[in-house]
Amino acid sequence: MLKNMDELLELAKRRGKRRIAVAAAASRNILEGLKLAEDLVHPLLVGDPDTIKQYIDEIGLNAEIIGSRDMRESTYWALELVRKGEADLIMKGKVPTPDFLRAVLDKEKGLRTNRVLSHLTVLGVPRYHKLLFITDAGMNIRPDLEMKTKILRNAFEILFRLGYEQPKAAVLASIEQLHPDMPETLDAAALSKMADRGVFGNALVDGPLAFDLAISRESAEIKGVKSPVAGDADILLVHDVAAGNSLAKSMIYFGGAKAGGIILGAKAPVVLLSRADSPEQKLYSIAFALASL
Amino acid sequence: MLKNMDELLELAKRRGKRRIAVAAAASRNILEGLKLAEDLVHPLLVGDPDTIKQYIDEIGLNAEIIGSRDMRESTYWALELVRKGEADLIMKGKVPTPDFLRAVLDKEKGLRTNRVLSHLTVLGVPRYHKLLFITDAGMNIRPDLEMKTKILRNAFEILFRLGYEQPKAAVLASIEQLHPDMPETLDAAALSKMADRGVFGNALVDGPLAFDLAISRESAEIKGVKSPVAGDADILLVHDVAAGNSLAKSMIYFGGAKAGGIILGAKAPVVLLSRADSPEQKLYSIAFALASL
Repeated sequence: MLKNMDELLELAKRRGKRRIAVAAAASRNILEGLKLAEDLVHPLLVGDPDTIKQYIDEIGLNAEIIGSRDMRESTYWALELVRKGEADLIMKGKVPTPDFLRAVLDKEKGLRTNRVLSHLTVLGVPRYHKLLFITDAGMNIRPDLEMKTKILRNAFEILFRLGYEQPKAAVLASIEQLHPDMPETLDAAALSKMADRGVFGNALVDGPLAFDLAISRESAEIKGVKSPVAGDADILLVHDVAAGNSLAKSMIYFGGAKAGGIILGAKAPVVLLSRADSPEQKLYSIAFALASL
Repeated sequence: MLKNMDELLELAKRRGKRRIAVAAAASRNILEGLKLAEDLVHPLLVGDPDTIKQYIDEIGLNAEIIGSRDMRESTYWALELVRKGEADLIMKGKVPTPDFLRAVLDKEKGLRTNRVLSHLTVLGVPRYHKLLFITDAGMNIRPDLEMKTKILRNAFEILFRLGYEQPKAAVLASIEQLHPDMPETLDAAALSKMADRGVFGNALVDGPLAFDLAISRESAEIKGVKSPVAGDADILLVHDVAAGNSLAKSMIYFGGAKAGGIILGAKAPVVLLSRADSPEQKLYSIAFALASL
């Protein structure tokens, strides 16, 4: 169990320095993010060699350059580095997100597995007693029950790798009662029961739980809800990406949370940063990817 | 424009003391909430007279008691007080929420208008420069476009009454692009265009906007999105109750927000508190209802 982002960074450091392939790396913004993470990863930068050379000299980043002036080619080169074991994880550079993800999912040249790809956010919230994970706040728009099962499985797998013995997931809704007009409450019940039947291994799942019950033991007591997850959730499973996205961002902007995010389910962790991410968020995303190896 | 909860309290006080009818008031918890608001409202307590008498003596609350030992009868009594103009607003006591709302919506004995009922949350978030309103985080499960129009109209009406000259609403999604697989982005575009056409009077609406763009000018600048709402939203319109509920609660529990909530669209504002609401939240909900008169 990790209490805060410093512990995640420590864990990432203990994994030892790994090689990260960057697709279309000729972006100052991206390279500055990698500079912050230079104790953690050694970058293999695929992209326009002149621009990359200029930026890394300016920034003072130590990296290898693999020249390629075509964005699509850069992406496939980076993917091949991972497939051949010459890189341990991959990061998106200047290539548009849909193109990048399409390449990652390519059956021959990508990093596809038989698992679904899903997004996992990690948040160090000052007012919570440990790290909090939200899934899926970045990739799957409106997952059905089968998809939620896979998303939850992806998340648990990573938490096990981070050293959690019995991760706890709360399936969020606005109420604790089951309501046929609220499919998220029915999905929550199904996922809870699957967990009881051992589908997720040594992990706990409870829901439907409103947000306050998931994270506050006091709220759970006032409402008389008994649950091994209430007040102590590690993972919050949201019912759609719009809900998850707002929730994670409110924690970052209003709750002062430190945050990072990665895509799970490919052959290697995928780091996919947004331009609006702070430099700190870039570091935490890379650390998260590394720690989950 | 109100900067914080203290300003809302001030506004409520300037409205002058009003009479609040409480349906099934024999609850210590509810009466303690009313004690906090005794400068704002004079309570007309409908319910079991002996229990109420005992509690208000213990608490030191000055109130009128209207004896009724039946919960259903208490509710209709309280509604009648409002209908006859003997009370200015109504609050739910111990009666279950669905029963209470059914009575409020009763065509003959309730407070029904031709408007829809919707929930509006007010939040004083330390990290935001003014009050933030979320709708609908408590009542309408998954509104369609027509319903969203009505919910937004309810919210604007209240903000106009609170003294806002040009309230700004952000329609939330996870992205700023329009995406056919994300109906919330299409609804957002429609609502924005309706506002351009004057449907909401002197109010601004923009969307789809991700949460960070709605509340952070810096994020909007980084992403190059120009919008009169971005970074300065008063109202966040969410696409369903599960999203709104988690979002409001994350602001309260992790963002240190002071919060209150009321139901709009009836003949008088309706205060409907949850057991897990803090005493402060109870006061703010009553003040919000009063200020919106």
